[in-house]
Amino acid sequence: MIRRPDNLLDIKGFAFDVDGVFTDGGILCDLQGELYRTFEAKDGFGVRMARLKGYPVAVITGGRSESIRQRFLTSGVDPADIYLHSRDKGEQMADFCRRHGFTPENVLFMGDDLPDLELIRRCGIGASPSDGVPEVQEAADWVTERAGGCGAVREVIEAVMRAQGTWVFDVDRYKVMF
Amino acid sequence: MIRRPDNLLDIKGFAFDVDGVFTDGGILCDLQGELYRTFEAKDGFGVRMARLKGYPVAVITGGRSESIRQRFLTSGVDPADIYLHSRDKGEQMADFCRRHGFTPENVLFMGDDLPDLELIRRCGIGASPSDGVPEVQEAADWVTERAGGCGAVREVIEAVMRAQGTWVFDVDRYKVMF
Amino acid sequence: MIRRPDNLLDIKGFAFDVDGVFTDGGILCDLQGELYRTFEAKDGFGVRMARLKGYPVAVITGGRSESIRQRFLTSGVDPADIYLHSRDKGEQMADFCRRHGFTPENVLFMGDDLPDLELIRRCGIGASPSDGVPEVQEAADWVTERAGGCGAVREVIEAVMRAQGTWVFDVDRYKVMF
Amino acid sequence: MIRRPDNLLDIKGFAFDVDGVFTDGGILCDLQGELYRTFEAKDGFGVRMARLKGYPVAVITGGRSESIRQRFLTSGVDPADIYLHSRDKGEQMADFCRRHGFTPENVLFMGDDLPDLELIRRCGIGASPSDGVPEVQEAADWVTERAGGCGAVREVIEAVMRAQGTWVFDVDRYKVMF
Repeated sequence: MIRRPDNLLDIKGFAFDVDGVFTDGGILCDLQGELYRTFEAKDGFGVRMARLKGYPVAVITGGRSESIRQRFLTSGVDPADIYLHSRDKGEQMADFCRRHGFTPENVLFMGDDLPDLELIRRCGIGASPSDGVPEVQEAADWVTERAGGCGAVREVIEAVMRAQGTWVFDVDRYKVMF
Repeated sequence: MIRRPDNLLDIKGFAFDVDGVFTDGGILCDLQGELYRTFEAKDGFGVRMARLKGYPVAVITGGRSESIRQRFLTSGVDPADIYLHSRDKGEQMADFCRRHGFTPENVLFMGDDLPDLELIRRCGIGASPSDGVPEVQEAADWVTERAGGCGAVREVIEAVMRAQGTWVFDVDRYKVMF
Repeated sequence: MIRRPDNLLDIKGFAFDVDGVFTDGGILCDLQGELYRTFEAKDGFGVRMARLKGYPVAVITGGRSESIRQRFLTSGVDPADIYLHSRDKGEQMADFCRRHGFTPENVLFMGDDLPDLELIRRCGIGASPSDGVPEVQEAADWVTERAGGCGAVREVIEAVMRAQGTWVFDVDRYKVMF
Repeated sequence: MIRRPDNLLDIKGFAFDVDGVFTDGGILCDLQGELYRTFEAKDGFGVRMARLKGYPVAVITGGRSESIRQRFLTSGVDPADIYLHSRDKGEQMADFCRRHGFTPENVLFMGDDLPDLELIRRCGIGASPSDGVPEVQEAADWVTERAGGCGAVREVIEAVMRAQGTWVFDVDRYKVMF
């Protein structure tokens, strides 16, 4: 089922769903109905590497928890690129592309469930973690080796950046930026 | 051990135990004894799809945490269909059927442990996640491929709705309802 | 490595370590250093069944979090049988036996790490989850099929109670007691 | 891929990254952006054994949560050996060695991702959990059988202490110290 596309050099930015992509799908619920997610450190480092080298990274999620925003702010994501409470991800993708001056063909988008299907099909690279639902895996250009919350995000960011020669850890810039 | 029934077309509503069904059984306990569960995003989307198409969904649990209620309210479950602190699940099932005007034969119920056995036997479809206790798996009409907290709920909802032709994601209605 | 003893009929009470036995060893730490554990619902039901039929259940742990006490109180464990902040488990076992009028030969104790070794050796049945450390597994009379936090506790309680003919779920008494 | 070095007798102190080493990489994020980790009890006991026998144990992490400090204080780690918000781990290692009067050759360091590479190469033993990133595993002298958060820390501490004859649980000293 693992597939990998050949247009990695076209990618200028990344966009991700959250639940089942940055997480294993688990959502912890408190007494007030507030929801908490568990993110993965290696994914977080991947996002930081992308930001360190100037790639825009968008987060487009149906979730509305401020904890999601907080998580990505500390990973260097631009606040304007964090789209919470999305109900039609196509709208947010259009905004992300317009703001950064590129087209969906320049974007790698990863999602795992039905609300992600449209973007999976429309973006330059549509990616699914290894445990995306069958419809998403079938529509995706890229099905990663790793599951959501277990390095799927890191896998695609690292592969694109390696292909483009930008996956180089620069401790001095890292110290300044984070 | 995987079994699947042939009366999917009779189902008009769903009812679920919580621990070990919507979760992997894990219960996080705080200093005041309050309990927190981790729910699964793909299961949550399954419940929303059922609600989007008008299927009543009941939650019948021995747990009493308000966090359970909050979780299912945000998934579109009718407040009256959330039964916390159940000690005799047969009573709550009777209430659920009476309120929606159907009989237990119209209900798919999923549970994983001894307090669920009576409803497993009595409902139109009694379902067990793949890691239900042996007594429950033996009594069940349907043992899912997936374990509790890992998509067992999504599996039964999706299969029933596919059989009935209602598993169609409608982004416009979704935007209005959630 | 799985072993099972033949003196199940001698057991009158149960005693358990917490971390790695009732849990998978995971400990969530908050800003004040307070620790939270994730317990397992099927284990919890096993403890309730034991209490329903009158078996004393002790918890003997080095942990000091009140969340542990809260968890076991709601499972019907006698407050006096919850020993937190234990540094020499032999002392607490002696107290447990004295208070209930039995000897260590009447107790099944389950532990998973070096501080549990003494009781593993001394009790009527010394049990280890399948992922106990090697020294504990070697010393144990019983190594369960299941790992800590994944049903190891339920496995021993259920097997002892089945052997003694007491593993019978009584919904009416359950409603009164819990 | 599992490798184990032959200079275990040279080790006088231990130093560890946190995310992906003491944990499986999972980071729970709250509404304020505060991050929480789940530590593992058997690892925690390993750290206590090291401290019981006088080995300095350092924690060098990019994380800044006070919850990390709290966790290691209760495990007997010297407050001065807990380095949070590290952005250049070489600096903290130099401080750790200077304060304890040994050289990097006397230190076993375990890390799992690119910011750990420098110390992996420079220390007497550079160790990687079984799920460290490929670059780290290739550079490491020791790749453990166990993954981060699943006993990788315990594995190296126990092996070094066994080689040096210090892995002996002393309940009386333990009672005094913890």
